Amino acid sequence: MSLPTFDGWTCPIPLKDYPNIVMGHGAGGRMMNDLIRHLFAAEFQNPLLGQMADAANLDLNGGRLAFTTDSFVVSPLFFPGGDIGELAVNGTVNDLAMSGAEPLFLSAGFILEEGLPMETLGRITNSMARACRAAGVQIAAGDTKVVNKGHGDGIYINTSGIGTIARDIEIAPQNARVGDSIIVSGTLGDHGIAVMSVREGLTFETEIRSDTAPLHGLVQTMLQAAPQVHCLRDLTRGGLAAVLNELAEASKVGIEFDETKVPLKGAVLAACEMLGLDPLFIANEGKLVAFVPEQLAERCLGAMRRQALGQEAAIIGRVVADHPGIVVARTSVGGSRVVDLPAGELLPRIC
Amino acid sequence: MSLPTFDGWTCPIPLKDYPNIVMGHGAGGRMMNDLIRHLFAAEFQNPLLGQMADAANLDLNGGRLAFTTDSFVVSPLFFPGGDIGELAVNGTVNDLAMSGAEPLFLSAGFILEEGLPMETLGRITNSMARACRAAGVQIAAGDTKVVNKGHGDGIYINTSGIGTIARDIEIAPQNARVGDSIIVSGTLGDHGIAVMSVREGLTFETEIRSDTAPLHGLVQTMLQAAPQVHCLRDLTRGGLAAVLNELAEASKVGIEFDETKVPLKGAVLAACEMLGLDPLFIANEGKLVAFVPEQLAERCLGAMRRQALGQEAAIIGRVVADHPGIVVARTSVGGSRVVDLPAGELLPRIC
Repeated sequence: MSLPTFDGWTCPIPLKDYPNIVMGHGAGGRMMNDLIRHLFAAEFQNPLLGQMADAANLDLNGGRLAFTTDSFVVSPLFFPGGDIGELAVNGTVNDLAMSGAEPLFLSAGFILEEGLPMETLGRITNSMARACRAAGVQIAAGDTKVVNKGHGDGIYINTSGIGTIARDIEIAPQNARVGDSIIVSGTLGDHGIAVMSVREGLTFETEIRSDTAPLHGLVQTMLQAAPQVHCLRDLTRGGLAAVLNELAEASKVGIEFDETKVPLKGAVLAACEMLGLDPLFIANEGKLVAFVPEQLAERCLGAMRRQALGQEAAIIGRVVADHPGIVVARTSVGGSRVVDLPAGELLPRIC
Repeated sequence: MSLPTFDGWTCPIPLKDYPNIVMGHGAGGRMMNDLIRHLFAAEFQNPLLGQMADAANLDLNGGRLAFTTDSFVVSPLFFPGGDIGELAVNGTVNDLAMSGAEPLFLSAGFILEEGLPMETLGRITNSMARACRAAGVQIAAGDTKVVNKGHGDGIYINTSGIGTIARDIEIAPQNARVGDSIIVSGTLGDHGIAVMSVREGLTFETEIRSDTAPLHGLVQTMLQAAPQVHCLRDLTRGGLAAVLNELAEASKVGIEFDETKVPLKGAVLAACEMLGLDPLFIANEGKLVAFVPEQLAERCLGAMRRQALGQEAAIIGRVVADHPGIVVARTSVGGSRVVDLPAGELLPRIC
């Protein structure tokens, strides 16, 4: 056979240190950002991909549409508080919600490994269906592929989603303004530690459960209280640290926050200390961060706290003019430290 | 840990013969149909999924939208005439085109296996970008996951797509009418045999190349010549045999076609005879079948033949009132045979 010709493709310089894909390229940190910016966004010549928004914002049929995609490869498939099916629905619902959209339709693409028990697939599908009903979305399109045993891990699921965005919504990673208050919607690290604890066979006094949940209802409440929310992001791979760094860079602003104000469950904190992990870097699947004009922040926070998914919301910091692109944490002992984007892999296959 | 509870999920009866997923569940034949109808469509309670249309047809923002998803797991990644990247773009463009939509935006979800050479990923991305430019679509959203070595096969790609459908288009698997002429757009089996020949190390006198191509331009031409096209399907997994059976069942009509009129390349026919395969069951990635009212068929065919992708189009048969749900082929020796839906797996991992 004659190999197809490729018009002089050469590896972009920032990727040359890694001749092969490593786990860190999927971890939500700097290595993944490099891959997206220097390979995918560069090849597809699409500035949307380089902006790292959770969903693309498209004009279609005279209205505004949000469009997003996410693949789920979590291991194990079932974990305390959830499973891959529920995660696949909520994850894409949340990516739509973070652009202020009303999530409407999902697609589901299944890559099944030969030998997957039909009962496992049934339980996962059942869980997806229940998550769809809970979130008020419909699965409108699907696809099924089967790969040979040893070329998968039971099941991988891709969900893509579309939703409509109201005309007056202006939420984007570039929209943070100096003075904005930074609100997180609840305790951090629950999902990552829950998955990790099953995988590593760890048990804690209190069971740590994934926080997987659809956040569009909470976002609606927030937008009613504070229509001028500037930025919204769910805190998935790379955790709060990754998201704050991405927003600081996209908006060319500095960020300061108070570590002692970050909501954390005692059990998660204990697990992190035992394992040498920083909860700021750990994935969540039902938590968001919002950048809100200071004068609206208390009102927004109050509205959030009246919702089950925002009961433990807290204002943790603010956007500053100093050190653009840099995230600084005030520590419990009164000092400060730079919180950088995680480089590579902390907890692989967490979503 | 306590496993999540599943409200009495039990395996639907038609799936009970298979306690585990086998390759046939992804092959486009009866086993895959059973899985979709009795598990996915039943759980998601969504009649759209049971109708087996190539793309969902949604009302949104006061207009009509097509939405579809497809995962690509082809092995090997590069084959004569194409690669997984080009396939992933054209496949989803074609699913949109088959509902009469103008394809506009795609998402790209990558599942990369640890160890994949960066250069391979670069070549595939470059190929996707070129296919997007050729088809006039944009990749608007992306996602990257990495799985451990031994849990993938280099790269799997999911593409989902959205496009707009003009108000007057009425194409659906249920719309075949008695008397309709059945047109195929060109030679069958090229893609499947091209991939298979690399995988099995076969060489033929003439190189057989994949027919991967975007078909929405051809569809536009057809709709201009024959606005009342009733059904359109691209002939992917399961080939012409699977599609004709699905349309006969969806429309509750009979189908008759003349085997000698089905366009075939000599080399593909020779390969099929050598391998004991029936070209009617083999996957194509740049061919479609159309059901067109008889009085418009010649005009539609003429318009197709003036396009590069329809040069070898042919009318192969018609829709009949007899034997609803059954597809009958007139054979070269003057007899006839029932062409059933393929049961399970002919050529695994062909797309």
